[in-house]
Amino acid sequence: MNYRMIGNILGWLLIFESMFLAVPLVTAAICWEAEFWVFLGTAAFCLAAGVLITRRKPVSTTLYSREGFIIVALSWIVLSLFGALPYFMSGAIPSYVDALFEAASGFTTMGATVFPEVEQLPRSILIWRSFTHWVGGMGVLVFIMAFIPLSGGQNMHIMKAESPGPSVGKLVPHVRTTALLLYSIYLGLTLAEFIVLMICGMDPFEALNTAVSTAGTGGFGVRNDSMGGYSPAIQIAVTVFMILFGINFNSYFFIGKLRFREAFTTEVVAFLLVIIGSTAVIAININSIYSNMGESVRHSAFTVASIISTTGFSTEDFNLWPELSRSIIVMLMFIGSCAGSTGGGIKISRFLILFKGVKKELDVQIHPHRVKKIKIDGHMIEHEVVRSVNVYMVCYVLVFAVSMLLLSFDNYDLITNFTAVAAAINNVGPGLELAGPASNYSVFSEPSKVILIFDMLAGRLELFPMLILFSPNTWKK
Amino acid sequence: MNYRMIGNILGWLLIFESMFLAVPLVTAAICWEAEFWVFLGTAAFCLAAGVLITRRKPVSTTLYSREGFIIVALSWIVLSLFGALPYFMSGAIPSYVDALFEAASGFTTMGATVFPEVEQLPRSILIWRSFTHWVGGMGVLVFIMAFIPLSGGQNMHIMKAESPGPSVGKLVPHVRTTALLLYSIYLGLTLAEFIVLMICGMDPFEALNTAVSTAGTGGFGVRNDSMGGYSPAIQIAVTVFMILFGINFNSYFFIGKLRFREAFTTEVVAFLLVIIGSTAVIAININSIYSNMGESVRHSAFTVASIISTTGFSTEDFNLWPELSRSIIVMLMFIGSCAGSTGGGIKISRFLILFKGVKKELDVQIHPHRVKKIKIDGHMIEHEVVRSVNVYMVCYVLVFAVSMLLLSFDNYDLITNFTAVAAAINNVGPGLELAGPASNYSVFSEPSKVILIFDMLAGRLELFPMLILFSPNTWKK
Repeated sequence: MNYRMIGNILGWLLIFESMFLAVPLVTAAICWEAEFWVFLGTAAFCLAAGVLITRRKPVSTTLYSREGFIIVALSWIVLSLFGALPYFMSGAIPSYVDALFEAASGFTTMGATVFPEVEQLPRSILIWRSFTHWVGGMGVLVFIMAFIPLSGGQNMHIMKAESPGPSVGKLVPHVRTTALLLYSIYLGLTLAEFIVLMICGMDPFEALNTAVSTAGTGGFGVRNDSMGGYSPAIQIAVTVFMILFGINFNSYFFIGKLRFREAFTTEVVAFLLVIIGSTAVIAININSIYSNMGESVRHSAFTVASIISTTGFSTEDFNLWPELSRSIIVMLMFIGSCAGSTGGGIKISRFLILFKGVKKELDVQIHPHRVKKIKIDGHMIEHEVVRSVNVYMVCYVLVFAVSMLLLSFDNYDLITNFTAVAAAINNVGPGLELAGPASNYSVFSEPSKVILIFDMLAGRLELFPMLILFSPNTWKK
Repeated sequence: MNYRMIGNILGWLLIFESMFLAVPLVTAAICWEAEFWVFLGTAAFCLAAGVLITRRKPVSTTLYSREGFIIVALSWIVLSLFGALPYFMSGAIPSYVDALFEAASGFTTMGATVFPEVEQLPRSILIWRSFTHWVGGMGVLVFIMAFIPLSGGQNMHIMKAESPGPSVGKLVPHVRTTALLLYSIYLGLTLAEFIVLMICGMDPFEALNTAVSTAGTGGFGVRNDSMGGYSPAIQIAVTVFMILFGINFNSYFFIGKLRFREAFTTEVVAFLLVIIGSTAVIAININSIYSNMGESVRHSAFTVASIISTTGFSTEDFNLWPELSRSIIVMLMFIGSCAGSTGGGIKISRFLILFKGVKKELDVQIHPHRVKKIKIDGHMIEHEVVRSVNVYMVCYVLVFAVSMLLLSFDNYDLITNFTAVAAAINNVGPGLELAGPASNYSVFSEPSKVILIFDMLAGRLELFPMLILFSPNTWKK
């Protein structure tokens, strides 16, 4: 195990985190908030720790896939541990576990909060919450990889471990260029949303918060009623952008090159069809609650886009909707967005592979000697990928079941536990009942919060890094 | 596709079903019940149809694995379709879909009923309900295979498709002898329970019903309160037998040969440990409800044994227990019993393979060049078995999710839908809320009942036969 190199990258991570802290620091300075000193202290602490650690050069820069997974898992834990300090030190959150929950919920883009009210919070705290979504949305390590010196193929291990979805598609031959391209799309789309929200009449500070929070498919808002109090125009704009951030970013690259056939992959089409279908069924189901069909469709579309993209904003308390709508919402939590987006969930592409894999398996059972490969969009899917997706599902089910069992010691109802774990592991945010959009996660006990933090991180990093970090075999010589 | 041979075996199945009908027929004759004519008519109809079909000899008796799966799936459907006739014709159940639900619930040993009350039912109907559990528990086709002429390895396809658990262990080289051995153990244990229940003071008719219902891990009872009204001695006896029928029958073979190390496999030990652990936690959790710890332990042990063995008897309405107990009960539904028992669920051995598979997969991720095989009880588990268990889990999750989505159109709460599907696919019987032990499944709409019937059959036959039957590829030339 190359401990020195692991330490070195974690050191760089802290240096970058101190830079991220500049955003709330500047906000606090502009707004003349006392939290300025907290952010300055945290940033200085991160910078000092980072510089100290990175001064000790590693003997070798070679990284194997084991180190790749460990770096990814540890980075996100360290990021959250330090990112929690401003909440804790400023006194905004008196318990450190709660502060850690908020920070992890931010970076993993889950977006579930422990704050019962957010409107009275300082602006610097609010922007730090939203900005963690933006940092976590695209993955922080890939970003760092573009700056720190690592030889050739090394960073592929890390990129593979951190990127959402079953396979990393390289748009251009060079990993670093691919990463820069994706970050440009990310930045561009975020700016576009910011501008659109301003045009729709949103206050600039709120528009900035909402834009970065949507971009990371996070869900932290600056109002107690999330998006409920905004005008229909703003709600519709956010709906559209939540869907856009749930689509594979590769599609935008291809649209830019006018290669539309490559942009509208089976995954993207399936994603859009699921959104349309669910919106229609829910709109009909909730129609009796609202004054007209337009309103039903608006709330239905917003909720569907928010849940399937795993953003977690809400315009209405969907916990109070009829059972059919609630069931569909729970399904959408699991489906999640496209691979290569900033969204979470199991991902549409995984479901495509799972469905085709099952179909193939049934064929194998009846014709044992006919071996066929699965094809998606004309590309062969390697057996290795199918196997790894199957194992992913098995891990997912096991992590889910164990989490639910542990959470049930809080003695809350099954729906609360089930949807809280689903909301955490899929990085959605709100669940149902006590974890519903009108509630917050402060009801859970500290051990349960730790389990949910594990689930968020495990879900965001696609399970394996966190499982490998905690597997005893990893640490054997 | 060897249609003639498929027809031939289905014909034999009907002949055997007419013989099974002799049990309620004799009961009706003894008790002088008008249902005698219904059972006589159904038996005669099955016999006539069976004889007519089997008269047309197949050109070839060769069966491939495709035909094996289809025969298994169709047999259980035909068994249920004809087994539903007595309920429907006697007027006990006015709707044929409901009658089919009751019959399928019987044969698959789910044990969920559509009857709000059972005590006023004729004895012949009651014994037919319980007896379908006994017929379905061990699998009917393997039984038939022991009698009808099929050359050599042919019946292995069918045995593999019908037997519970990931792999069929042949105790002795010959399949037919293995089957006869297992049936002897089954018969012996059933008789033992019948005698023990009589000694505990149960009425002979009720003892017979309870014994055959426990043996198949079914759960149909003859009293409205299931096992709640019986003496503690009877409840304890049933607890023990539910556990015994949830253990791999191979263990009894090895115990008979005094080969204890082979009898107490990891699976059996894990099964017993889960029972002890769950009983302890639930007993503490429900202690405040009952007058003393002894009573809490008795109800806890009964419920745990009933749910993990997927029998589904109840002494208490566990739907009213605290949330922690309810959560554990839901977990136990999924865990299920040992492979090679009459119980359902995902099965302990599958979980062992899944856990070890995940552990191995994590090792592969960190050491890609080190290939190790999974071992359980010193036996290597082939990659094929691991893969098939993984695919099983994926199918399970997909069937579960689709069923829940379809059920949610009834607009019942999520817990009802979730536990109803869980109770059906794992062949448990009662779920929670509207599907709880104090309710019955008549609340569901007819389309929902059809979905649940599919789930019961899919669960009992370990998913693949039913999926293959309904896969369009199966029927292509």
